[in-house]
Amino acid sequence: MPIHTPPRILMGPGPSPVSPQVIQAMSAPVLGHLDPDFVSIMDEIQSHLRKIFQTENEFTVLVAGTGMSGMEAAIVNLLDRKSIIEENTRTLVCVNGYFSGRMVDIARRAGADVIAIEKPWGSAFAPDDIAKALEHYKNISVVTIVHAETSTGVLQPMEGIAKIVHDAGALLVMDCVLSLGGVEVAVDKWGVDAAYSGSQKCLASPPGLAPLTLSARAMEKIRRRKAPVQSSYFDALELEKFWLGTKRSYHTAAAAPLYYALLEGLRRVHDEGLPARFARHRRHGGAMRAGLESLGFRFIAESNNAVPHLIAALLPVGANDFILRNDILKDFNTEVGGGLGEFSGKAWRIGAMGEGADRDRVLPLLDAIETVFIENNIAVAPGQARSAAEQFYEQHKD
Amino acid sequence: MPIHTPPRILMGPGPSPVSPQVIQAMSAPVLGHLDPDFVSIMDEIQSHLRKIFQTENEFTVLVAGTGMSGMEAAIVNLLDRKSIIEENTRTLVCVNGYFSGRMVDIARRAGADVIAIEKPWGSAFAPDDIAKALEHYKNISVVTIVHAETSTGVLQPMEGIAKIVHDAGALLVMDCVLSLGGVEVAVDKWGVDAAYSGSQKCLASPPGLAPLTLSARAMEKIRRRKAPVQSSYFDALELEKFWLGTKRSYHTAAAAPLYYALLEGLRRVHDEGLPARFARHRRHGGAMRAGLESLGFRFIAESNNAVPHLIAALLPVGANDFILRNDILKDFNTEVGGGLGEFSGKAWRIGAMGEGADRDRVLPLLDAIETVFIENNIAVAPGQARSAAEQFYEQHKD
Repeated sequence: MPIHTPPRILMGPGPSPVSPQVIQAMSAPVLGHLDPDFVSIMDEIQSHLRKIFQTENEFTVLVAGTGMSGMEAAIVNLLDRKSIIEENTRTLVCVNGYFSGRMVDIARRAGADVIAIEKPWGSAFAPDDIAKALEHYKNISVVTIVHAETSTGVLQPMEGIAKIVHDAGALLVMDCVLSLGGVEVAVDKWGVDAAYSGSQKCLASPPGLAPLTLSARAMEKIRRRKAPVQSSYFDALELEKFWLGTKRSYHTAAAAPLYYALLEGLRRVHDEGLPARFARHRRHGGAMRAGLESLGFRFIAESNNAVPHLIAALLPVGANDFILRNDILKDFNTEVGGGLGEFSGKAWRIGAMGEGADRDRVLPLLDAIETVFIENNIAVAPGQARSAAEQFYEQHKD
Repeated sequence: MPIHTPPRILMGPGPSPVSPQVIQAMSAPVLGHLDPDFVSIMDEIQSHLRKIFQTENEFTVLVAGTGMSGMEAAIVNLLDRKSIIEENTRTLVCVNGYFSGRMVDIARRAGADVIAIEKPWGSAFAPDDIAKALEHYKNISVVTIVHAETSTGVLQPMEGIAKIVHDAGALLVMDCVLSLGGVEVAVDKWGVDAAYSGSQKCLASPPGLAPLTLSARAMEKIRRRKAPVQSSYFDALELEKFWLGTKRSYHTAAAAPLYYALLEGLRRVHDEGLPARFARHRRHGGAMRAGLESLGFRFIAESNNAVPHLIAALLPVGANDFILRNDILKDFNTEVGGGLGEFSGKAWRIGAMGEGADRDRVLPLLDAIETVFIENNIAVAPGQARSAAEQFYEQHKD
């Protein structure tokens, strides 16, 4: 009996829909993790990732886990632990959503003295917020920030932040799980020291691999560490032996089919070209947003700092999260995401990313939401969501 | 251009060959990690794993990474860190190969006071070795041991160990990456508190998922911890929220295609039945061993404690590891493994596991080794390896 998996249309915050070619790539024969042909695949993946991260960082690899493994790897390699014999060097975490909250947890578990500065969920940080914190708290060696918050749909402007961080003698860690491949991520231009992502959002591959890039400055700090990184699995120096150099050595096994799928996804990113891909995410995300607004959703992210392709929005008054999402899943075979944290039960997270950034995904979903709204006695005029989206498409033909 | 992956015959220490059905399973549509249909798949995986681990442990889940992620998860959840304010509770690691060495590294990085007791690579531990160490060192809270060492092919007898460990007030962690699904692993009967494995050896699925089971005693210790586990990604209490109970909550994304492949692999284990599967691994591993012995290989593991399906063996005098393995890869499209640690360049690791435990895999590999030996002027009589294996098959018809 084959495994039962309905062909869900994935329009939540990830995983995003993958193309038949990406699925097909996984049927290539499994190779061993030190096979010369597998090493070539690893090299090609690294080369694509450098282009998409817009970096020359030699250390641009995959962590063998989901996006969250990338987060943990970036943080535990770079943070300093609390010390009882010398003055503490601290980790500053910019918190404005669920995933930045997770960073606090990871850093604390790893023994860091964490300073969390907070903004309301839905807002972005200004460079000045970070400058003030660095001046006030002193002795901060690592600053972490989320480029695109999957819990709120906030896109963090990155210009000007690294200079402030570097001037204070710290390193900058950036989460781009949601942004990489969907919107500009310019690691070198922005001066980011560690950036990580996940395979399953705008890279349009299945979940399970976490791209990670580290600057020369970050690698230098890791090489100078007195104590080894707390984790063998996430240790950048171990990953380096497996990913770089002419003679590769064993670190862990490799989930070969996921590598094949990601490589196929990366080749598709390359073929489309980054500017066209970003424009596509903006366009279809914008149409989705217009349709949702017409249905009475209110956006969590301020409009000037919104992720183009992931919309976190409060449900209209009277709309029951669980019933409506379940109806969409059952009647339209489509997944949308629920709210996280303070927005649990109150908001939805809807993505138009990767293969989901497509008119033929956006319009049917808007129709579906409208239908279940009407069936559940939420007052909306039939056709209004599609019409608002169509109007957006008319106005944005790029 | 499709991704170039030659159809390698994987006869090394893993990944092992996977069936077309397992590969095919990965083409099912990707589901979200909280989709009710995905939760059903997770539940079925857990139910199969409990049978194969021979356990009633409720906590029987997958860690979202390779076998090494299972090792790290098992250790970091259970160990006690060095303390400067109270008497140290220590971790005792039984070291007789590369992977038990890795356990020392993981535990030390995580801040444990590690006592390593050593046996020569190739030997197993006796319960008495552990009893003496527990008596000598005192205050040991965790004992770790490798059931089947991939670096040496040693199978560790497990009877009698847990009682000694428990009587000393400690918990027992067992690595069964190489053994699970190929040879008996009786978690409950043996009294093991934490056991982990990998998907890519005798479970005959691609790498990337690590089965992990924890006893009620282990879970109780984790729940009583004063400080949280150092890792969010590996925290058993976080995994528990995602894997168990009626309402599942987000921990990380899930590499859905790997779950499908593993489930298909587990169903195949179930259909074959454990006794038949173990017999098949014994039979084909035995034939491989007979053939290798006839070619002049000398086994690293003592014969009374040898893993049936993975043979670590010293090359005959004059045989060049690199040249010969490369010839087998190039001319016969077949992967065998090199030696690890002190056996690097001197030994091979050859598996007959999962789909590789098959006469049609064993005999051609023996022919191939013989051919490259002859081509490289190593004195062997043509046909002798196959003939030794055939003789073994004649004598073991079960």
